[in-house]
Amino acid sequence: MSPDPRQRLAVVLIDTRNPLNIGAAARAMSNFGFFDLRLVRPYHAAFEEAVSAVGAADLLRQARVFHNLSAAVADCSLIVGATGLGHRVFEHPLHRLERAGRLLRRHLQSARAAILFGSEKFGLSNQDISHCHWLLHIPTRPEHDSMNLGQAVALTLYELSRSPAAARRLPEAAERATEAELERLSLLLDQVLQHSGYSDYSRETSAPDKTRRLVRRLSLTSRDAAICAGMLRQILWKLTHPAG
Amino acid sequence: MSPDPRQRLAVVLIDTRNPLNIGAAARAMSNFGFFDLRLVRPYHAAFEEAVSAVGAADLLRQARVFHNLSAAVADCSLIVGATGLGHRVFEHPLHRLERAGRLLRRHLQSARAAILFGSEKFGLSNQDISHCHWLLHIPTRPEHDSMNLGQAVALTLYELSRSPAAARRLPEAAERATEAELERLSLLLDQVLQHSGYSDYSRETSAPDKTRRLVRRLSLTSRDAAICAGMLRQILWKLTHPAG
Repeated sequence: MSPDPRQRLAVVLIDTRNPLNIGAAARAMSNFGFFDLRLVRPYHAAFEEAVSAVGAADLLRQARVFHNLSAAVADCSLIVGATGLGHRVFEHPLHRLERAGRLLRRHLQSARAAILFGSEKFGLSNQDISHCHWLLHIPTRPEHDSMNLGQAVALTLYELSRSPAAARRLPEAAERATEAELERLSLLLDQVLQHSGYSDYSRETSAPDKTRRLVRRLSLTSRDAAICAGMLRQILWKLTHPAG
Repeated sequence: MSPDPRQRLAVVLIDTRNPLNIGAAARAMSNFGFFDLRLVRPYHAAFEEAVSAVGAADLLRQARVFHNLSAAVADCSLIVGATGLGHRVFEHPLHRLERAGRLLRRHLQSARAAILFGSEKFGLSNQDISHCHWLLHIPTRPEHDSMNLGQAVALTLYELSRSPAAARRLPEAAERATEAELERLSLLLDQVLQHSGYSDYSRETSAPDKTRRLVRRLSLTSRDAAICAGMLRQILWKLTHPAG
């Protein structure tokens, strides 16, 4: 079995009417690194040419077509149905996508799973749902929970690809300007303001402190500090060489 | 200002070519409860009729059209650009969607923000990006990071709507079968197996314990335990009344 858990997930589209939606699902699969697409009774035999499958033509060509759902998921040990809240069938546990993603990831560590998406118009049928171990729903507004099929597939695969650690990680503290660079910039700005006759500098002895604090508040990168310093040097030169 | 942070977010589509994508973006906005759509130089004046906007016709009709980006985001104090990794512009901090969602949510608590999505073909231009405070990227495969526009909008709004608590929450411990129900079921199954001549029951005195453990492993709901008990009672009746 593949060492990559993503290769153990089958995306199963049932009774899909619009080949553009099959293409959009394939594209999202390719975006997130899932490649096992299975189609149960697609309405259009020519789905492989779906133009919305930008970058996912191979994936579409390798999609397998089945005449019934049992055959499509015969090798999977967890079958999950994607439904709106309106379709709730009380015999089945229903998990919001956030939690469904966790459960699916755990299962995919060691075994195959399938996620079922029903037709654009009717969603999953009761018979489709009877094959499921549990259901997932995307947390949409109750007043408008009918989602575009391609978007629903994309959201589900994104949740499986999400990294909770990435949410907490601080941005790379990339090349913040050093104290020396900021101080050089403050001194340059002081000179420019003095030479330009900026009022504070004639009235207040604390003016340079205000300038220093202002420069620190800008949270400059090294690169931007250098650019600003260049601008100020040119301005200073012009101020001190008015006839130049 | 509205008490709902979602009403403080503007979704800005720039130079969008395909009206179906505008419709798909509008539908995803409605799904997740965001209603402020702004369009900068859309290619098709008749975008309001985009058929993929199922359930979002009002939202589309209320979308505002602008001739330049500055005007479109004039009231926002945070401008975020959605880009692929390929478009990285080094002057700008770049956050993965998971973290971008956190930063945006915090900002929207008290102020307006805009997320910019560029054209299907070229993404955001360098000029568009120069208006941004930072950039977000969706964590796709580096080999295929070009996403469908409607899906990119849906993923971004889903991340803003996601509930970390929902990922941790245990499913409702809904109507699990009680010990008494499971014990009744085990005893019924014992009787059925004895009457049917199932081999273990003639050879092993521990057979009822095995049956009891099996029944517990099924993690039945009350309702399903009752259904199974009904089936077993009928089978038992037939076994004990063969001529019936």
